[in-house]
Amino acid sequence: MLLRATQRALRRGARQKSTVVMMRHGESTWNLENKFTGWYDCPLSEKGHEEATEAGRLVAAEGFKFDVAFTSTFKRAIRTLDHALEETDHMWIPVTKAWQLNERHYGGLQGLDKQQTVDKHGIEQVTVWRRSYDIPPPDSDKSSEHWPGNDPKYAKLDKHVMPTTESLATTAARVVPYWQHVIVPELIAGKDVLIAAHGNSLRALVQYLDGIPNDEITELNIPTATPLVYEFDDAQEPIPQPDAIAPLQGRYLGDQAAIRARIEGVKAQTK
Amino acid sequence: MLLRATQRALRRGARQKSTVVMMRHGESTWNLENKFTGWYDCPLSEKGHEEATEAGRLVAAEGFKFDVAFTSTFKRAIRTLDHALEETDHMWIPVTKAWQLNERHYGGLQGLDKQQTVDKHGIEQVTVWRRSYDIPPPDSDKSSEHWPGNDPKYAKLDKHVMPTTESLATTAARVVPYWQHVIVPELIAGKDVLIAAHGNSLRALVQYLDGIPNDEITELNIPTATPLVYEFDDAQEPIPQPDAIAPLQGRYLGDQAAIRARIEGVKAQTK
Repeated sequence: MLLRATQRALRRGARQKSTVVMMRHGESTWNLENKFTGWYDCPLSEKGHEEATEAGRLVAAEGFKFDVAFTSTFKRAIRTLDHALEETDHMWIPVTKAWQLNERHYGGLQGLDKQQTVDKHGIEQVTVWRRSYDIPPPDSDKSSEHWPGNDPKYAKLDKHVMPTTESLATTAARVVPYWQHVIVPELIAGKDVLIAAHGNSLRALVQYLDGIPNDEITELNIPTATPLVYEFDDAQEPIPQPDAIAPLQGRYLGDQAAIRARIEGVKAQTK
Repeated sequence: MLLRATQRALRRGARQKSTVVMMRHGESTWNLENKFTGWYDCPLSEKGHEEATEAGRLVAAEGFKFDVAFTSTFKRAIRTLDHALEETDHMWIPVTKAWQLNERHYGGLQGLDKQQTVDKHGIEQVTVWRRSYDIPPPDSDKSSEHWPGNDPKYAKLDKHVMPTTESLATTAARVVPYWQHVIVPELIAGKDVLIAAHGNSLRALVQYLDGIPNDEITELNIPTATPLVYEFDDAQEPIPQPDAIAPLQGRYLGDQAAIRARIEGVKAQTK
């Protein structure tokens, strides 16, 4: 199927124009504590720093060049990007920190222990909150530190756009327009782009890029700190990569068997 | 004198509006090797990382808040800024990396050992290159890696503005307009600013801010990784700070006696 798509692209005379390498941040301290993180701004764990450095080395080994980089407002993604910029000797490129690339807001679940939440609400309810496409967790309280309207980071933004909770659908409703209106113009300008973001903001992005159905995207796991390479043709369509793992058209860098194992592994957290 | 200036500012009804904290990068690997660095993009040394972290802690201890940050295109300044942003919990603020804040270009001396250059050309000639206001070192060759026109970092810039060498005067001719046209509008917008840059780009800046004569600025040493705090009134004039060390109107954070010793210490490198 991928080969046919490549042949189709070649037939219509599309030429490779831009590269986008995206990566999910390395392990954070709250991943380690098995808490729902969402918009809580916890740092990378020691292992997360190592993972991000290794991801940067994988990108460096293939000699990628970048013109601009994008990340979220969270230090776990920013530090992951910084490691990649350092390893690839790209510290000098412009970096945009966009809240639109933030992790999905986890609403009233933020800060709670994943296992305790399962014990309290049952695995079925928690699975709905974690894995349904458009049913968000309960709202966070607007008096809570977890509502971004109370965070100085977002003081200059319209409070109407600050979520109290998000589903994957509402996450996509900010990620995809940001891609279309801010990142795609960079591709059109012939630039190569590095992105460090989060499990759900990247899920929303690859769903759009690869046309993945709603019921399939919620089961798709993107492993942490594993560079995912998309090549775009001059119509800004992804060019299917030879080593892509379906349903993605991009390819992961690194040990492919280990990556497949990690994709399966993420699913086990509340099982 | 400083007290009189403060009284003058108060008399004319000026109110404190914005804070700018600037810092020179920590020790780099080439500082350590006693080489002329200029626009060569060497990393921080281990000690440089520690200095920058400590500088960030000093800023954090006074509870400063920042809205935007500026640095150069060099990793020794960018990493110094990153440490400060991490220690003060400001990793999320926008960072602009401007070549206009780069170190003075050292022309044909870049990469040479400072002591060997003294042995070859004599201390008198080297002192002229290092300390005169407007006599630059010999040009770098346009075929050399030291000419920024050959560096991918600056590929999108007009090659006419890329220096083959710089004096403090020509450094100021890019630093001061950048301050006036890019950073001052941020102050006017009420923003507080963090800057990490270099010995000579900061010298050019404080010369402008504090009205320091040409023959005096070349003798002024700004110690590495030592936060220098300027407060500006609502006419963007610096408000003289109580602990300022003349001729500066800004104040350094940290042990004042140690800072005075370091200001004297920088002078000894080629003696």
